[in-house]
Amino acid sequence: MRIALAQLNYLIGDFDGNVAKMITRIEKAKADQADLIVFGELSICGYPPRDFLEFDDFIRNTQEGLDKLAKHSHGIGIIVGAPSVNPVVEGKDLFNSAFVLHEGEIIHKSNKALLPTYDVFDEYRYFEPAFDFHVFEYKGKRIALTICEDIWNIHNENPLYRTCPMDILAEQNPDLMINISASPFNAGHAQQRIDVVVENAKRYQLPCFYVNNVGAQTELIFDGGSLVVRPDGGVHHELAYFEEEVQTFDLDEVLDAKEQMVRPKEKMSQVHDALILGIRDYFGKLGFGKAILGLSGGIDSAVTAALAARALGPENVRVVLMPSRFSSDHSVADAKQLAENMGMPYDIIPIESTFNAFENLLTPQFAGLPEDVTEENMQARCRGVILMALSNKFGHILLNTSNKSESAVGYGTLYGDMCGGLSVIGDLYKTEVFDLARFINREGEVIPISTIIKPPSAELRPDQKDSDSLPEYDILDEILYLYIEEEMGPREIIAKGHDEALVKRILRLVNINEFKRFQTPPVLRVSKKAFGMGRRLPIVGRYLS
Amino acid sequence: MRIALAQLNYLIGDFDGNVAKMITRIEKAKADQADLIVFGELSICGYPPRDFLEFDDFIRNTQEGLDKLAKHSHGIGIIVGAPSVNPVVEGKDLFNSAFVLHEGEIIHKSNKALLPTYDVFDEYRYFEPAFDFHVFEYKGKRIALTICEDIWNIHNENPLYRTCPMDILAEQNPDLMINISASPFNAGHAQQRIDVVVENAKRYQLPCFYVNNVGAQTELIFDGGSLVVRPDGGVHHELAYFEEEVQTFDLDEVLDAKEQMVRPKEKMSQVHDALILGIRDYFGKLGFGKAILGLSGGIDSAVTAALAARALGPENVRVVLMPSRFSSDHSVADAKQLAENMGMPYDIIPIESTFNAFENLLTPQFAGLPEDVTEENMQARCRGVILMALSNKFGHILLNTSNKSESAVGYGTLYGDMCGGLSVIGDLYKTEVFDLARFINREGEVIPISTIIKPPSAELRPDQKDSDSLPEYDILDEILYLYIEEEMGPREIIAKGHDEALVKRILRLVNINEFKRFQTPPVLRVSKKAFGMGRRLPIVGRYLS
Repeated sequence: MRIALAQLNYLIGDFDGNVAKMITRIEKAKADQADLIVFGELSICGYPPRDFLEFDDFIRNTQEGLDKLAKHSHGIGIIVGAPSVNPVVEGKDLFNSAFVLHEGEIIHKSNKALLPTYDVFDEYRYFEPAFDFHVFEYKGKRIALTICEDIWNIHNENPLYRTCPMDILAEQNPDLMINISASPFNAGHAQQRIDVVVENAKRYQLPCFYVNNVGAQTELIFDGGSLVVRPDGGVHHELAYFEEEVQTFDLDEVLDAKEQMVRPKEKMSQVHDALILGIRDYFGKLGFGKAILGLSGGIDSAVTAALAARALGPENVRVVLMPSRFSSDHSVADAKQLAENMGMPYDIIPIESTFNAFENLLTPQFAGLPEDVTEENMQARCRGVILMALSNKFGHILLNTSNKSESAVGYGTLYGDMCGGLSVIGDLYKTEVFDLARFINREGEVIPISTIIKPPSAELRPDQKDSDSLPEYDILDEILYLYIEEEMGPREIIAKGHDEALVKRILRLVNINEFKRFQTPPVLRVSKKAFGMGRRLPIVGRYLS
Repeated sequence: MRIALAQLNYLIGDFDGNVAKMITRIEKAKADQADLIVFGELSICGYPPRDFLEFDDFIRNTQEGLDKLAKHSHGIGIIVGAPSVNPVVEGKDLFNSAFVLHEGEIIHKSNKALLPTYDVFDEYRYFEPAFDFHVFEYKGKRIALTICEDIWNIHNENPLYRTCPMDILAEQNPDLMINISASPFNAGHAQQRIDVVVENAKRYQLPCFYVNNVGAQTELIFDGGSLVVRPDGGVHHELAYFEEEVQTFDLDEVLDAKEQMVRPKEKMSQVHDALILGIRDYFGKLGFGKAILGLSGGIDSAVTAALAARALGPENVRVVLMPSRFSSDHSVADAKQLAENMGMPYDIIPIESTFNAFENLLTPQFAGLPEDVTEENMQARCRGVILMALSNKFGHILLNTSNKSESAVGYGTLYGDMCGGLSVIGDLYKTEVFDLARFINREGEVIPISTIIKPPSAELRPDQKDSDSLPEYDILDEILYLYIEEEMGPREIIAKGHDEALVKRILRLVNINEFKRFQTPPVLRVSKKAFGMGRRLPIVGRYLS
């Protein structure tokens, strides 16, 4: 039996486009003599469709998509992900299903049992879990077909679920496993995914064909890396990461082979590629081609600009230098240098006149009061107005340049530097932004060295340094990581050797700044816990705050 | 047996404050000779605690709170809601529980079985459903204790769950039912809640004591209205709406009584009271006392200001009139009139000089290009900068004045009039804003009549009217309602008699403006489907767009 794995980039709700894309791959697979072609989870509608699943009209569209695909199933089996209607009145209205189409008919359907409902996942919001499991027979082979999370409940110290669907399917003597997934990227996740598929193959002594989606869906970046694993746990093949690929495998050849495939998985290389895909798909899928951003001479905007230039082409990234009375000469020089290094068009638009206009206008209200953070924010907001005006006039999307450390502690101005349609590096701590800058420069200076080595500053008052109001970033980032990613409380973090007063101050800053993060753009997710849809906290409360 | 129902307003994560508040009510209930006092769902930590539930430290705090309460349970039983740790390794780590404390001990614990995971609810994100159900005995009575949703799966055409916990508990011959809830307000929900409790009482032929929380938690406004219902379905008592109340009932007296209590539930009166509670708690729980907002002379800012003045006191609401070259004289006059009617301090700050500063600054970039929406947005953003500067300098929270119709179709400027810490009327369609204005004026003119009767305009270009670019609001709002609240697709909406081209245009506008709503402040929820945490849609997609 020859099985084609089709790792594709879908657009949510674009039924015509997604189905058309699948049909070209089906025809190619037929030409390759494939017996079966396998697409990823919810591939007809794109994953995650979120509350569109609550619209009957949307579900009808998925069914029409299935009908179209079925017409192309003569001479080939097609496995495709789509929601299906739960015929039982009790429970949620839908299942998250994998359909098997052949000779114009639906010959089998598997429903997902383990519904991830944590972090960025909301599947029990929409789907009823499956309670029965059946192997299906196709061309003399018995196939155990599961969906994503269904194979993740093994060898787990803290299992989220009470059942393990493959344990039940294994009793029905399958010859092979197929799993269709929509498993998003985070640094380290590709290796975990391989470990899980390998564990399954070994536990059930079956070859495993695993298809993941690829492509960014706003915050979530699906990285592909589909797998073929032998019953002994040997990885026969890893498909490409961060790009579409379709490849056909002969089951007997897979079983007979001995080679082991290992692709490199260096963290900053993966993050770099993920962010580029994230930018490219955000723009491409929205039908935009041009970005704009403010370039301060600092590391955050430099890294954001460099990534955008690689994603969209430097000629499509307009950078704007907006110096104020507090901007240092070297900042402007560094920003210009970066724009010139990469060939990005740039404007220099000093904000002084607009800032003065607000200062003068508000003189009666502010009379007798000292300058404070108000004036700092006003500068950032003048820059926001300028960038949004250019964005509106020329049809750019504004890129946000905030990093995770500053978002965490609220070191940023709402409607100022926190503006933008997409946050590119908002899931990277400041120390990781430096790592990524060095990665970008690995084959030559793109980001000026002086941008990397000078002490970080917002340059909103004379001689300001980030370290005036924040601890050094290596300490700050470690405390933030323990709180945000590891969900430790103050006791545990202090027990790791951090200063008690500092820990309490930082955790309080994180919690009281939830109101700011609530209004920030979507953040490209590259860690296991990003700000945004996967981290849901009250704005109003009194916990560690 | 005498049972005290304690309908209280909790602050999320404020364990000390919540427990102290409960202890004062326990002592009072003891003085009233109560045998049992009942608090609402997750009352120790406040509902919804959201991802704080993932922190072990947070869970330890709830357990310490329970220990403190238990010390006050001598001579009285206490029913209190708190998370509890699931002792089984498989499944989620927590249950959503109701503890019964007596004589210093936990004498019973019920776990919630039906976990709402739809709209604003995410309970399966945190909790394992209960699978076993036990009546407990207290002072000679057998009590069936359930939590919120557990009693909602009856007489339901489309049940979300496969089980009905009370059916199982009823087999254990209980003498009464107690349900502890955290059921948020929306217009019409109080009556649904009464219907459900009445249905339960009649189905099981038991008296039902139902305790709801009260108070706003950011978007969600818990309205109280706790209930005592007799086995025949007669409503013995409804506690107050939108305020705390503790009241003790004698079980025998309840069973013997015949009177029926019916409180009025007029929609705009409820919405008015809900929004005032929503504003008051947002400010009070964050420790703020003063609001600021822009007053345009239009209906949206007028209604927002009037509500804020009632919630915080007019002296604490600073309104700012920011006329431009396009503002009509009557707008400024109407805005001043409102401020004077209510006694709110006001500033008049014309934006012309700041707008000119940006126009001049951007002359080189904009040379030769016609004016367009860029200049309109720039005016709105100048106002945003001014309001945020005052807010920063004086410590006000900026109130957002957008309505649901304009948020839906993207008729607003990001970082301009879409700024603010809280959206007050963002869940009211424009036609409902007019209804609410008339309600506010029911005992005399607060909002100037001319504000109510003139045609709506953003006044961002000469003689602009909303109806230049949008259909009349009665048509727009009906289409929006069918799409947003009823989740109908274009076919169904057109079948209701609406123009096909218009329907497609409106639905497209709603979908392509998801990126704007993603960055707006939390919206006080008063409908069954508000923008925000209860409506989760992709920013990037191609469905009806």
